[in-house]
Amino acid sequence: MYIGYSEAETFLRNCEDAVIITHQSPDGDCIGAGFGLKDILAELGIRSRVVCSDEFPSRYGFMTKGVENEDFEPKTIIAVDIADTKLMGRYEEIYGKKVQLCIDHHESNKNYAEMTLLRPKATAACEVIYNLAKYMEVNISRHCAMCLYTGIATDSGCFKYDCTTPRAHEIAAEMKRSYDINFARINRYMFEVKSRGRMMLEAKFCELMEEYIGGKLVIAAVTQEMMKNLGIACDELEGLAPITLQLEDTEVGVLMRERESGEFKCSFRSADEVNVSEICQTLGGGGHAKAAGCTFKGDIEAAKAAVIAAVEKALK
Amino acid sequence: MYIGYSEAETFLRNCEDAVIITHQSPDGDCIGAGFGLKDILAELGIRSRVVCSDEFPSRYGFMTKGVENEDFEPKTIIAVDIADTKLMGRYEEIYGKKVQLCIDHHESNKNYAEMTLLRPKATAACEVIYNLAKYMEVNISRHCAMCLYTGIATDSGCFKYDCTTPRAHEIAAEMKRSYDINFARINRYMFEVKSRGRMMLEAKFCELMEEYIGGKLVIAAVTQEMMKNLGIACDELEGLAPITLQLEDTEVGVLMRERESGEFKCSFRSADEVNVSEICQTLGGGGHAKAAGCTFKGDIEAAKAAVIAAVEKALK
Repeated sequence: MYIGYSEAETFLRNCEDAVIITHQSPDGDCIGAGFGLKDILAELGIRSRVVCSDEFPSRYGFMTKGVENEDFEPKTIIAVDIADTKLMGRYEEIYGKKVQLCIDHHESNKNYAEMTLLRPKATAACEVIYNLAKYMEVNISRHCAMCLYTGIATDSGCFKYDCTTPRAHEIAAEMKRSYDINFARINRYMFEVKSRGRMMLEAKFCELMEEYIGGKLVIAAVTQEMMKNLGIACDELEGLAPITLQLEDTEVGVLMRERESGEFKCSFRSADEVNVSEICQTLGGGGHAKAAGCTFKGDIEAAKAAVIAAVEKALK
Repeated sequence: MYIGYSEAETFLRNCEDAVIITHQSPDGDCIGAGFGLKDILAELGIRSRVVCSDEFPSRYGFMTKGVENEDFEPKTIIAVDIADTKLMGRYEEIYGKKVQLCIDHHESNKNYAEMTLLRPKATAACEVIYNLAKYMEVNISRHCAMCLYTGIATDSGCFKYDCTTPRAHEIAAEMKRSYDINFARINRYMFEVKSRGRMMLEAKFCELMEEYIGGKLVIAAVTQEMMKNLGIACDELEGLAPITLQLEDTEVGVLMRERESGEFKCSFRSADEVNVSEICQTLGGGGHAKAAGCTFKGDIEAAKAAVIAAVEKALK
């Protein structure tokens, strides 16, 4: 059932001992939303813990470290930034059918929870949570503001992409007026700082970027072997997808990265007019119009062929 | 003489046939400020033309193309985003001592004009001009909004850097609510799209980036010969300076690029706490705390040694 801010407030004010689930391959938005919501619940005197099927990457440590994840038998199950229970990884089996409240911004949300606060035009789940906290008139702590800013900044490419709402800018302005936070340092760690290995990998992108369909599609594929040679982990590749869009004629860019399991995780980006969420839905995935994803089992050539065929069809 | 919005309004409403000077090696902010101010003057029925010692790079064509630069004997001289008359290039001799109004945001502004509207905390000259237009209650056309947004976005690294004011975000929010502008497309052209040659050059940065002072200083130097080999023009290197900050320990990053004249133009960036404007002032240059520049004549090794010594002194 889709709900509004009022019902979400009633639910949150009356819940107890909450588990907050974030999606696998966690990014700035689900981590920010999870830990931001935990801070808001703490303001209400409600215990919670944030869980994720994968480890939180170390660069998000300023949100996750030093936060007490109390041990309790959960009475409340909340999902943030999760469009589909299969994105919960190993938590799908435990909690997938028991989610009472989902707070999300993906238009592809499967409406799997008892109650879903969905704002498909919001830049980030963190934008929805900020608006909810303001609606509830709950205090937003400095740590909470850092978390919510991070989600908005990372999901919008630091206010660069089309998904950036006026509200996202307003929230950033409000935070900059209200908190003594080093936003530039957050942005530096989210968008600039990288390991030597990652830097080498980005340098390899010139060779990796293959053009198809007259340059309208660019695919960059990174295998496990390449990651080993470069001494880099799969999650360090997270921010690379936008790089596939840097040539002028490119309309769709796809980063394909091989998981240890041999699956290929594909991150699609649209430069402007093509809706990649629709393309990914035809491939069993989903996401936003300008940033979406899907997963392939099997070999890289077959996966590439499927991507090319799907994009070709969409461009027609 | 430093003035406020009121005096600037009086001056602009009563001026005629204005030349608007932008700085050499033009960037998004001076071009946006120049053409944005021209639009504002046009709303007041005042003729103007925007001049620059260098050609405007083609990626700024959406601001400069199709704008009528009428021919007239100037009666009014205005400078935008110019801290020092020597940044006017060949226009310094003609107009350097005749500037009646300077609109700027550089704390290093030399106060060379009859009247200077200086807002050293503003993100960009375009932020000052937007605020001035609002103060004057002049209509801001769609083209003007595109120009002013571009200046704010480019000078802030798309709202990423410390210089990003709350007001910059508020202006972006106001514009996104008021105009049907494809902001993401502007950002794509400002921050993402590049030539194959530029992409190759960025890939070369791994090898170019030299660490000094225990990794706290990174220098990347690009000579004319390298540019020729890569088929790239000097102005295409403009956005590379922030890349020098991408390793975690780096506090100061310096991009040195050789002009055709053999001079080295040095762009300094600070990751967080070091004030590079102060460093550049000791080297005959200037700018902002986090982004500043200077120029060296002579050979590259001497230039590097001077940079290293100046940064070492500042770090102490």
